[in-house]
Amino acid sequence: MKRIAVFTSGGDSPGMNACIRAVVRTAIYHGVEVYGIRRGYNGLIKGELFKMESSSVSNTIQKGGTILKSARSLDFMAPEGRRLAFEQLQKYEIEGIVAIGGNGTFTGATLFYEEYGVPIVGAPGTIDNDLYGTDFTIGYDTAVNTALDAIDKIRDTADSHERVFFVEVMGRDSGYIAMPCAIGGGAEIVLIPETKTTIPDVISTLQNGWSRSKTSFIIVVAEGDEEGNATEIAARVKEAIPQMDARVSILGHIQRGGSPTASDRLLASQIGIACVEGLLNGKKDVMAGFVNNRLVYTPFKDTITKKKIINQRFVRMVEILSV
Amino acid sequence: MKRIAVFTSGGDSPGMNACIRAVVRTAIYHGVEVYGIRRGYNGLIKGELFKMESSSVSNTIQKGGTILKSARSLDFMAPEGRRLAFEQLQKYEIEGIVAIGGNGTFTGATLFYEEYGVPIVGAPGTIDNDLYGTDFTIGYDTAVNTALDAIDKIRDTADSHERVFFVEVMGRDSGYIAMPCAIGGGAEIVLIPETKTTIPDVISTLQNGWSRSKTSFIIVVAEGDEEGNATEIAARVKEAIPQMDARVSILGHIQRGGSPTASDRLLASQIGIACVEGLLNGKKDVMAGFVNNRLVYTPFKDTITKKKIINQRFVRMVEILSV
Amino acid sequence: MKRIAVFTSGGDSPGMNACIRAVVRTAIYHGVEVYGIRRGYNGLIKGELFKMESSSVSNTIQKGGTILKSARSLDFMAPEGRRLAFEQLQKYEIEGIVAIGGNGTFTGATLFYEEYGVPIVGAPGTIDNDLYGTDFTIGYDTAVNTALDAIDKIRDTADSHERVFFVEVMGRDSGYIAMPCAIGGGAEIVLIPETKTTIPDVISTLQNGWSRSKTSFIIVVAEGDEEGNATEIAARVKEAIPQMDARVSILGHIQRGGSPTASDRLLASQIGIACVEGLLNGKKDVMAGFVNNRLVYTPFKDTITKKKIINQRFVRMVEILSV
Amino acid sequence: MKRIAVFTSGGDSPGMNACIRAVVRTAIYHGVEVYGIRRGYNGLIKGELFKMESSSVSNTIQKGGTILKSARSLDFMAPEGRRLAFEQLQKYEIEGIVAIGGNGTFTGATLFYEEYGVPIVGAPGTIDNDLYGTDFTIGYDTAVNTALDAIDKIRDTADSHERVFFVEVMGRDSGYIAMPCAIGGGAEIVLIPETKTTIPDVISTLQNGWSRSKTSFIIVVAEGDEEGNATEIAARVKEAIPQMDARVSILGHIQRGGSPTASDRLLASQIGIACVEGLLNGKKDVMAGFVNNRLVYTPFKDTITKKKIINQRFVRMVEILSV
Repeated sequence: MKRIAVFTSGGDSPGMNACIRAVVRTAIYHGVEVYGIRRGYNGLIKGELFKMESSSVSNTIQKGGTILKSARSLDFMAPEGRRLAFEQLQKYEIEGIVAIGGNGTFTGATLFYEEYGVPIVGAPGTIDNDLYGTDFTIGYDTAVNTALDAIDKIRDTADSHERVFFVEVMGRDSGYIAMPCAIGGGAEIVLIPETKTTIPDVISTLQNGWSRSKTSFIIVVAEGDEEGNATEIAARVKEAIPQMDARVSILGHIQRGGSPTASDRLLASQIGIACVEGLLNGKKDVMAGFVNNRLVYTPFKDTITKKKIINQRFVRMVEILSV
Repeated sequence: MKRIAVFTSGGDSPGMNACIRAVVRTAIYHGVEVYGIRRGYNGLIKGELFKMESSSVSNTIQKGGTILKSARSLDFMAPEGRRLAFEQLQKYEIEGIVAIGGNGTFTGATLFYEEYGVPIVGAPGTIDNDLYGTDFTIGYDTAVNTALDAIDKIRDTADSHERVFFVEVMGRDSGYIAMPCAIGGGAEIVLIPETKTTIPDVISTLQNGWSRSKTSFIIVVAEGDEEGNATEIAARVKEAIPQMDARVSILGHIQRGGSPTASDRLLASQIGIACVEGLLNGKKDVMAGFVNNRLVYTPFKDTITKKKIINQRFVRMVEILSV
Repeated sequence: MKRIAVFTSGGDSPGMNACIRAVVRTAIYHGVEVYGIRRGYNGLIKGELFKMESSSVSNTIQKGGTILKSARSLDFMAPEGRRLAFEQLQKYEIEGIVAIGGNGTFTGATLFYEEYGVPIVGAPGTIDNDLYGTDFTIGYDTAVNTALDAIDKIRDTADSHERVFFVEVMGRDSGYIAMPCAIGGGAEIVLIPETKTTIPDVISTLQNGWSRSKTSFIIVVAEGDEEGNATEIAARVKEAIPQMDARVSILGHIQRGGSPTASDRLLASQIGIACVEGLLNGKKDVMAGFVNNRLVYTPFKDTITKKKIINQRFVRMVEILSV
Repeated sequence: MKRIAVFTSGGDSPGMNACIRAVVRTAIYHGVEVYGIRRGYNGLIKGELFKMESSSVSNTIQKGGTILKSARSLDFMAPEGRRLAFEQLQKYEIEGIVAIGGNGTFTGATLFYEEYGVPIVGAPGTIDNDLYGTDFTIGYDTAVNTALDAIDKIRDTADSHERVFFVEVMGRDSGYIAMPCAIGGGAEIVLIPETKTTIPDVISTLQNGWSRSKTSFIIVVAEGDEEGNATEIAARVKEAIPQMDARVSILGHIQRGGSPTASDRLLASQIGIACVEGLLNGKKDVMAGFVNNRLVYTPFKDTITKKKIINQRFVRMVEILSV
C-alpha cells in the first residue's frame, strides 16, 4: 500500500485524536502516505480529503473530541452514497482505510467492503464499551472517570443533606458505564439493562439502609434501564416513599468530552498502530481490539452481531460493598 | 464570650468546611470554647450540639459538603421552634453563634436575634453569589470552575459534531454563575434573568454565526432565565430553525460539590476568622463579607432585602468576544 | 474463621482505602468480624488493633492515602518483633490477615507464616506496578494519570518556549510508570531501567528532531534509569549540546497521592473481596491479583523473587509515535 | 488606529491565550486590524508577524501556554535590536502594540516607547502576581490552584506516614503563591521572602505540634525565601531533629501550565479588552490592571519600580489556623 486514509464517525469519544495521531505516524513510519477525511462518511462522499503529515497531529494526543470532526451519515447508507465515496477513493488513490467509530461505522464499512472490496480496518472509538471484539473501547475509561468524578461531587451534597440521589449515566443498551461508576462511587444500588432490578428492590434496599442508620444513598441508573430512566424511576420510588428527600442528576454530554486518561491514550495509540500495520499485512473488514491484553482482529460482522457480556461478578460486588 | 457555636444551613457549598475549620480554630486561638450544631436550625432545636476541638477539623479544609450536615428548617420559622432553640442555647451556655448559609439562614437568624437577643454573625455560604454585602460568596468560585470544566468537555463534542449546545447552569434569580461560564467557556450567547435576551436574539446570533462559517455554538442559560430553562429555550429555537443540530445539557447538582478552589478556601478561612473575631468584638445580627478586598459587616436585613447587581461590563464582553 | 484483621504497610498508594473498605464489608457480609491494625507491622507489634464496622469505611472509597496509616517496620524483621506480633494476634483472637502493601510487606508476611502459621493473604498496594502475580497494582493507574496530567502542563511551557524538558517520574527498578507517561504524554524519548538508551541516543534523537523542525521535546526518565536520574542525564546532554534550552522537572511525591481513578477503585474493591474470600476458602501465604482479567493467587515467594517484564511492544511504540 | 499587534513575552502563564483572544476580537469588533507577533521581542526583530482573524483564536481560551510562543530577548535590550524592531513595525504599518508579559517585558516596552514613541499597553501575564498596578496577574489563580492540588495529594502521604513535608512553590521574590497555598493547604508553617521566619521558629512549631499529638506537617516554602530553598531548610531542620521523618517536594514547572481557571479566563479577557480599548483611547506606556475591582492603567515605570505588598493579615492567618 502506498496511501491510506483515516476518518472518525459516530459519537465522538476521548482518545479519538490519540488514535488518529497513531494512524498518521505509523503510516509515515512505514513509508505510507496518509490522508485525513473530515466528517466521516459524509466527508468521504463529498471529497473532504487532505494530506496529513507528522506535524498535523502534533500536540493532539491530550485533546478530547476529534480533529477530523464526526457526523452520522444517512447518505452512505444508500448505494448511491457508497458509489460516490468509492469514486473519491479512486480519485485520491486511497488503497486502505482506518475507520474510527462504533457499530454504525462498522456496519457501513462492511457493506462498503462487500460492494467495492476496499480494505478497511476499524478502531473501536466509543465511550459505551459495548463492542464485541475488545475488552475496552477508546474513550470508555475517560467517560467512566468523568462520571465518577461527578458522582464524587454529588455525594458531597447527598451526604451533607442526607438525601437519596438518582444519577443517570450513559448506556442505552448496557451497564458498562453504570457498573464501575456504581462500584467506584460507593453506590448502594445500580440499575442496568442487563439485570432485572425492580422498583420494589430499590425500595427495600433503601428501607433496609435507613433501618441500619444509613442516611444518604447514591443510586446509579443506566439511561437504558428497562425500568425507565432516572427521572422515571425516582418518581416511582417517590410514590411509594413520599417522605424520601430525593434528587435526580442526569450527567449527559459531559461524559463524552475531556482529555483522555492514560489508559485511553495508550489503548488508542496501540490500536492506531495495529490498524495501520493490520492494513499493511492484508487485514480487511475487521476491527482491531485487545482481549485479555492480546491484540485481536475481529470481523466487522461479529462486532455488529455478537454481544459482549458484562462481567457477572460486578453485579455481586455492589451487593457486598454496600453492606 | 466563653462559648460559641457554629452551624451550616441551606444548600451546601464547597468551602463550608474550610469556614467551620476557621471558626473552630479561631475560637480556640482566642481561648473560647466552640460547639458544633448538626443539621442547622433543626439540630439546634433538637439539641444536636457537641464540643469541637482543633482536631475535629483536621484534614477537612479540602473537602466539599459540610461535616456539620445541613438542612432546611420549617420548624425554626415557627415561634415554638425558635423558643426550643433558645432553650438549647441556654442549656449549653452558648453566648454567640456563627451561622454559615444564605438568605434563608439569615432570615431565621435576624428573627432569632430580635426575639432572644442572641448574637449571631453570618458567613455567606452559597454557590449562587447573589448575596448583598460581599463580592463573593463561599463556594461560588468552585461552582463556576466546575461548570466551566463541564462546558470545556461539552465543547469537545460541540466542535467535533458542529452542533449547538444549550447548557443550563444554576442561578434561579441571577446570572452570577452563568456569566463567567459564558465568558470563560467562549460561549456565543448567555441568557440570564438580569438581561432581556429574547428567542429572536438567539436566532439572529446563530444565523449571523453560520453566515460567518462558525459551525458550533455554546449557549449558556441560567436556570431562572425569564425566557425559560434550557430545554424550553432550545425547543423554541428549534421550532424556528428545524434543521439545527442542537443538544441540551443541564449541569445540575455537580455544581454544588467538589473540593473547594484556592480562592474559596482562602475566602472561607478569612470569613470564618472574621465571624469569630466579630462576635468577640460585639458584632451581632450581621454577615461578614469582603467588598473590594475589605472586610465589611452588613446587617442581615440588608443582605436579605438589598440586591447585588451583576457587573454590566460582563454583558458587553460576551458580545465583543464572540465576534 | 470468626475474626480477621487488615493493615496497610510500605509506601501508601491511591486505592488502599477502597481495598480496606472492601475487606471490611466483605468480612461483615460473610459474618466475620474484622479488626483494623494501625501503622502496619509496627502497630501489630504494639497492639494498635480496633474493631471495624461497615460505617468505619463509609465515604472512604474516593480518598487517597490510607486511613489505617502506614509505616515501614524494622522491628518486624527481627524474630522478637514477630513474636510480639503473634502474641497480639492471639490476644485479639485474629485467625487471618489481609496485608495490603508491596514486596517488603510480603517478605515479612511469608516469614511470619513460616514461623507461626498465620494465614495471610496479600493485596498488591503500590504505585510501582512491579509486582509479579498481577497485571496491575492498586494505585498504579492513578499514579500514571497524575504524572501524565503534570506532563500535559509541562508541555504547555515546553511548547511555548520551544524547550527540551527532562521529566523524572517514579520507578527505581522499572519503567512501568515512565512508559505510559511517555506514550500518553507524546514524549520523544523515554529512559527506563529495562532498556539501554544511552546519552548518545538521546542526543541523536534531539538533533534528528531539530533537523525536522521539531522545536520542543519531552524526555521521560524513570528515576532508576541506569544512565542516572533526570538531573544527571540533562547535565550530560547539555555538555554535548550547550546551546540546548533545557529544564528538569522531578514529579516526586505528588505521584503517590490523590483520589483513586475508577480503575484503581474497581481493582482495589475486587482484590479486597478476593483477599477475604480467599482467606475463608483456606488460602494463605499468597497474594491476590488479576492476570489477563482472571483472579489468581500467587505465592508470596513468587511475588518476591520473580520479575514481571514490561511489555516490549511499548518500547517500539515510542519510536513509531515520535516519528 | 488602523492596525495593532500583540505578542507574549517572558515566562508563559495560563490565560495568555485568553488574553490574546480578547485582544484579537476586540480589535476586530472595533474595526481595527490585528497582527500576531511570534516569540516576543525576538520575533518582532525578525519580522515574525502575521495577520490574525477571529477564527485564529477559536477554541484557545481554555488552553495553557501561548499560541504566539514566548522567548526572553537579549537582542531587544540593545539599541540595535530596538531599531530593527521599529523598522518591522513601520514595514507592517503597526500603530500600537499590546504586550503580554511581566516586568522584563515592560522594561523593554518603556525603553521602546521613549526612543520611538510606539504606543504600547501592557497586560500583566505572569504566574508570580508580584506586579504593582493590579491585584491579580493573569495565570496567578491557576498556578495557585495547581500548587494546592499538588499539596492536597502530598498531604495524603504526609498523613498516612505521619511525616513532615517541605513543599517548595514558585516565588523568587515574593510569597504570593506560597501564602494561599499554605492557608488553603492547611500548612502549619510558611516561609516567604517577605517575613523573617527562622529555622528555630520552624523547629519550635514542629515540637509544639508533636507535643499536642499532631503527627503530620506541611511546610510551604517560597523558592526565594531568605533561609534557603526547601531542600536547604529541610536539611537544617533535620540537623536539629535527626529523628524527624521528612521529605522534600519541589513543585517546579507544573505550576506554569494547565488550562486557566475561570478567574484567570475572566481576568485575561477583561484585560485584553482594556488593552485594545486603552490603545484606541490614546493610552500608551501603561499596563492595564484591576485594583479593587476597578480598571486602572499604571505607567510601566511604576509597575517596574514600585513594590506590591502582600497582605499582612495572611501571615497571621497561618498562625491562627494551625492552632
